[in-house]
Amino acid sequence: MNIPVLSAAELKQLLTMDEVIAGVETVYRLKAQSETDVWPHVCHRFTGEHEGVMDIKSGAIGGTVRLHGAKLLNTFWGNAARNLPTFTGLLMLFDATTGLPLGIMDASYITCMRTGASGALGIKAFARADASRLFVMGAGKQAVFQIAATLTLLPQFTTVVIGDPRSDEQAERFAASLPHRLASEFNVQGLDGVAFRAARQDTMADLVRGSDAIITITPATQPLIPDEWVAPGTHLSCVGADMPGKEEVDPALFKRARVFADDLEQCSHIGEMELPLAQGVISRDDVVGEIGDVLQGTIPGRMGNDDVTLFDATGLALLDLITAKQAVDRAAAARLGQQVEI
Amino acid sequence: MNIPVLSAAELKQLLTMDEVIAGVETVYRLKAQSETDVWPHVCHRFTGEHEGVMDIKSGAIGGTVRLHGAKLLNTFWGNAARNLPTFTGLLMLFDATTGLPLGIMDASYITCMRTGASGALGIKAFARADASRLFVMGAGKQAVFQIAATLTLLPQFTTVVIGDPRSDEQAERFAASLPHRLASEFNVQGLDGVAFRAARQDTMADLVRGSDAIITITPATQPLIPDEWVAPGTHLSCVGADMPGKEEVDPALFKRARVFADDLEQCSHIGEMELPLAQGVISRDDVVGEIGDVLQGTIPGRMGNDDVTLFDATGLALLDLITAKQAVDRAAAARLGQQVEI
Repeated sequence: MNIPVLSAAELKQLLTMDEVIAGVETVYRLKAQSETDVWPHVCHRFTGEHEGVMDIKSGAIGGTVRLHGAKLLNTFWGNAARNLPTFTGLLMLFDATTGLPLGIMDASYITCMRTGASGALGIKAFARADASRLFVMGAGKQAVFQIAATLTLLPQFTTVVIGDPRSDEQAERFAASLPHRLASEFNVQGLDGVAFRAARQDTMADLVRGSDAIITITPATQPLIPDEWVAPGTHLSCVGADMPGKEEVDPALFKRARVFADDLEQCSHIGEMELPLAQGVISRDDVVGEIGDVLQGTIPGRMGNDDVTLFDATGLALLDLITAKQAVDRAAAARLGQQVEI
Repeated sequence: MNIPVLSAAELKQLLTMDEVIAGVETVYRLKAQSETDVWPHVCHRFTGEHEGVMDIKSGAIGGTVRLHGAKLLNTFWGNAARNLPTFTGLLMLFDATTGLPLGIMDASYITCMRTGASGALGIKAFARADASRLFVMGAGKQAVFQIAATLTLLPQFTTVVIGDPRSDEQAERFAASLPHRLASEFNVQGLDGVAFRAARQDTMADLVRGSDAIITITPATQPLIPDEWVAPGTHLSCVGADMPGKEEVDPALFKRARVFADDLEQCSHIGEMELPLAQGVISRDDVVGEIGDVLQGTIPGRMGNDDVTLFDATGLALLDLITAKQAVDRAAAARLGQQVEI
């Protein structure tokens, strides 16, 4: 049996942000129709000389899609000093009607793409219709995917502010690189109408307060955004927290926000809501529902212009699987990818 | 980054049973020294038109080995009618010092090889030193690996009897094929001194009673071997039960046997001991220990010639990982395998 192997470089050629967003939305909606299975998350911290974390996400998509598979991701911080990539992983995609493999591919680029799509879909589902000012907390590798997805899906955004909790210089450098990167790597249109700027530690509070939508995309384990920085009417897509102990926003925000999950079960264990739930700030009953139900129209998202809304996006293997299938199909059409006998 | 992809056909060329047995024993011993991590088992049953089961096993080996990874296996029974393989899967191997991938390969052949090694190591660890008569319950695809491993590791075995719970003809055909297959596929030596025969349903009880070691390797969900078929002094390697609900031997056997596990936690959820534990026939405290502790000599295995011993082998990703590393190393030396960019 022959299957394609797709490298990160090939995936960059094959995937487009608008298609990835459409795939992620499809999966969220199928989940709301009970057409998906999210299997238990496996994670492990390597300690000692070679510190790192790894996690395995897996699941199945039913309906007419019928895919299953698993993705293993590694983050080994010490690799940077050895000139090796810190964030690596592989994804295995299977046909859920036969169990036969459909492809194997790098998992890091797909993860970045579908995570960007999730943050942006959170804004579409929950932010005010007139939202135009985006604040992104975190100027690391994943932030550009969040911004590319938001500007692709929601061209009404005209201001993008980047804050980095650890380095004003990094935020500045990153903001300056955005127009070129968004155009060349993601083919984002209409960039002339968008202002990009960096926040400094001393302007952060005011710039967060002046935004309509916030995306948090850091590896933080302590809140970076205090409750009082968030104005009424703001939406937050909390994307960074995806392992036990991670936390990016003030737990107090959960008390006044309408809170949504990508998967309630998974969020309660590894998401932004993990610690507020454990601390008793909210209970699971206080979570309004999952994004798929809102996209499907079965539960309401935002109720009024003054609501604070919060979307806890932990990331689902389902999103990787549908994106992987797009890549496999596009590779077949373009005669790209490395065919292997398995 | 380039990594090798190894097909089932290439793995057949690269792996030898004696090396696989040595690797499996190494891992059992490392486990007893707390140098391994067995991560939670994920399993799912697909229902409806396309029935199947899939499971994901994952883990890490520390010590000087330092590997981690995951294996996803599928069994889709309906594939046979469509002339497709029913048992398929993939394995991803990583370097646990950097998280970088070391290889991707077919998982079905590795699973068969290391499962054979496990059953045989159970006999070595727990059967009487003079054991020479093997009974194998199950004449499916995996049985030949059990027999090849036993005869490779324990050349004192001179009788091999095959029983199949559903088909005397299948047992007969399989027994007749063994001398040629063991020689040609596994390079087993000394076959002239081994008698192979098939049991029939009406001779099964006596032939089980006349054996020193029993391996059960079926997908049964009801006991196939009643308590009264098992003579004092016999060893049982129970290999087939590796998912909730599977069961091959009479729960009553657990009351009189010295019971060992490959991994106590996993066995209690998906192994042969799952149902006896749930039914209260035994408690976890009645399980003597894990095979690794016996191989290391920290707990005793068999205490006397009349003991019935029972080894519950559910299979650990750790065994697949060390076998996969052997294959990757041998492929590099032999310039075999398909190099892909990832």
